[in-house]
Amino acid sequence: MKISQRGLEIQESPIRKLKPYADKAIAEGAHVYFINIGQPDIPTPKPGWDAFCDDTEDVLAYGPAQGFLDLRQAIVDYFSDYQISLEADDVLITIGGSEAIHYAFSVVADPGEEIIIPEPFYTNYNGYASGANVDISPLTLDVKDGFRLPPIEIIEARINDKTRAILLCSPSNPTGTVYTSDEIDRVVELVKKHDLFLIADECYKEFVYDGARHKSILEYNDITERAIVVDSISKRFSCCGARIGALITRNPDVYQAALKFAQARLCPPTMEQKAALAAYRMGMDYFKPIKIEYQRRRDVLFEGLQDIPGIVMHKPQGAFYISVELPIKDSEHFVRWMLTDFRLDNETVMVAPAQGFYSTPGKGLDEVRIAYVLKEEDLKRALVVFKAGLKKYQELFL
Amino acid sequence: MKISQRGLEIQESPIRKLKPYADKAIAEGAHVYFINIGQPDIPTPKPGWDAFCDDTEDVLAYGPAQGFLDLRQAIVDYFSDYQISLEADDVLITIGGSEAIHYAFSVVADPGEEIIIPEPFYTNYNGYASGANVDISPLTLDVKDGFRLPPIEIIEARINDKTRAILLCSPSNPTGTVYTSDEIDRVVELVKKHDLFLIADECYKEFVYDGARHKSILEYNDITERAIVVDSISKRFSCCGARIGALITRNPDVYQAALKFAQARLCPPTMEQKAALAAYRMGMDYFKPIKIEYQRRRDVLFEGLQDIPGIVMHKPQGAFYISVELPIKDSEHFVRWMLTDFRLDNETVMVAPAQGFYSTPGKGLDEVRIAYVLKEEDLKRALVVFKAGLKKYQELFL
Repeated sequence: MKISQRGLEIQESPIRKLKPYADKAIAEGAHVYFINIGQPDIPTPKPGWDAFCDDTEDVLAYGPAQGFLDLRQAIVDYFSDYQISLEADDVLITIGGSEAIHYAFSVVADPGEEIIIPEPFYTNYNGYASGANVDISPLTLDVKDGFRLPPIEIIEARINDKTRAILLCSPSNPTGTVYTSDEIDRVVELVKKHDLFLIADECYKEFVYDGARHKSILEYNDITERAIVVDSISKRFSCCGARIGALITRNPDVYQAALKFAQARLCPPTMEQKAALAAYRMGMDYFKPIKIEYQRRRDVLFEGLQDIPGIVMHKPQGAFYISVELPIKDSEHFVRWMLTDFRLDNETVMVAPAQGFYSTPGKGLDEVRIAYVLKEEDLKRALVVFKAGLKKYQELFL
Repeated sequence: MKISQRGLEIQESPIRKLKPYADKAIAEGAHVYFINIGQPDIPTPKPGWDAFCDDTEDVLAYGPAQGFLDLRQAIVDYFSDYQISLEADDVLITIGGSEAIHYAFSVVADPGEEIIIPEPFYTNYNGYASGANVDISPLTLDVKDGFRLPPIEIIEARINDKTRAILLCSPSNPTGTVYTSDEIDRVVELVKKHDLFLIADECYKEFVYDGARHKSILEYNDITERAIVVDSISKRFSCCGARIGALITRNPDVYQAALKFAQARLCPPTMEQKAALAAYRMGMDYFKPIKIEYQRRRDVLFEGLQDIPGIVMHKPQGAFYISVELPIKDSEHFVRWMLTDFRLDNETVMVAPAQGFYSTPGKGLDEVRIAYVLKEEDLKRALVVFKAGLKKYQELFL
């Protein structure tokens, strides 16, 4: 039987495809430190858990396609704490940030059209681009300068008559870079000049360190009809399994088109929306200790990596990732080998090979993404194991 | 800003687009009997509710992209009660049956290719076809003969070199028709002859009446690589808001391609999978009283409709819908008028206009779908109000 071309071409998740090797290591009795995936160990807040139990209904019924109004209003209130003014009808609740990406791509582009995305980028953009038959036009960034956006001329050179949008992810997964106002200004200027949409994945909004500030594209009043924000509670409230996100736009045509896609899938999960509502109602104070915790982890990880000979990296200011260049030639081989062959006191480490974060062939072969999603003590031990593994790997293969 | 062509063309849900009129009627103090949508009033089973509270984790974490193994195994066990033998790796947990439709369409067809679907059909197939840029080739059925499948020559005439699959929904939403073995045999013969996939939406598997039996396409051993089943717990366990479904296939290429789409959206909701598992573990006895209840409702509705002059219908044998032809010219206008203008003792009724269940323009204008999802007493009262409204409408507009 012939599978569709898109079914053949859609990328297997580079993060998830190595999972079976980790499962095998665990089955063999080893302990694996998972710093490959953005699955934090921060407890999901209690009000969220409690909301699952607080059922007053007999029937677990469909909700509205756009999500419950009280949750959409809670998100409006949350944004108002960032001095961003929205209406509930600007917020479409999605099944994870993933679905918001899906809708954004489908609404701005038709098959064969292009979206410019700085690479390395969150690997699942690839899946949604394939699913929607949209092409990603990569704007390659460089680890050596901390993955900053290039000058405006370089960005503009990627624009052609098939380009429909530029996507920015800040704080960035997988690099941890937080774009400055100046960097975002360049892109805003270009989307106006070339009549493009600007999609921003702002799922890591809370997680900015060293006094840096996250600037949202919703703060630009001259691109209200162009701005589409992809949002999610997965990291914000450490509840990745809830699958609640949002697409936020002040452009009613974009909203209506996305809503039609949303109607086809009926509604987001009902109980998980209740949990999300309870989490939002905790207010902004919730984030203060969380942010301090992540900043400390970032420092532990960054300092721990510094003495690796040949490593290239910049101190990231946001999210909970760092992308580093290592003195190896094939990071996927290295990651697999760590899982299958390397143990230190019966422990090993899983990081994410970076090739999957690039769409340019051959890029990222010597890079890995590390997520500081474990508590300090575990992260320190993971660093010891990781460095021992890397040393051994270099002796064997380089 | 230019929205994508598919964003413009994707159909607004014909079921959900009239909802604002119902909301307005409620806001004005009227009671609305909702027999337009497949949202049953049967209580969600207690083990399902309890599972939401039974959390033993600190972190609401990502699950596997294909769903939890214990849930997949529970579905295998459920199918074995129907003498259908599956492996856990034939079952991919999806976010509602909706997502299983999405994956099935995306994996069997590329943009511009066709899937043959008997019409009237579940309206959301339209949304997923638009989203995947796949064309639905409708095989028009007739209310006058109870929406039975036509002779094999008529079905075959719809097949061309763009055809990639035939989709059957039995028990059928929106007609309630349960295809006989003989009808399904015709389609099985054609998919073999023309090298096509056979997609079956079997979400209403339990709900067959009068001793009729639902035949699954998984029972055909000569099309194991062609058969793709779309499944859901929404109706099975009266938990539409849970958004848990499954794509079932014994074709590993189809499974792997669908899994790659699934990886892009990370995982189905974690807690709702736990609820689904608890529901499946109740065993088959759970369905006996439910089935008796729906059969009684079917009888109440069918008998109640019989004395409407000019109505054309057949007694449905499955699901919980009936599609009927009424002596009116524009059922969407009628449904809207019922909500905006008609009250009987401050009550009104919402049914679903059938145009949206057809992709052939002009079809279904005099048809509506009625869902017997309310308990007998409410259904009887809804019939009184419906018939009074229809009579008044005919006086005013015909």
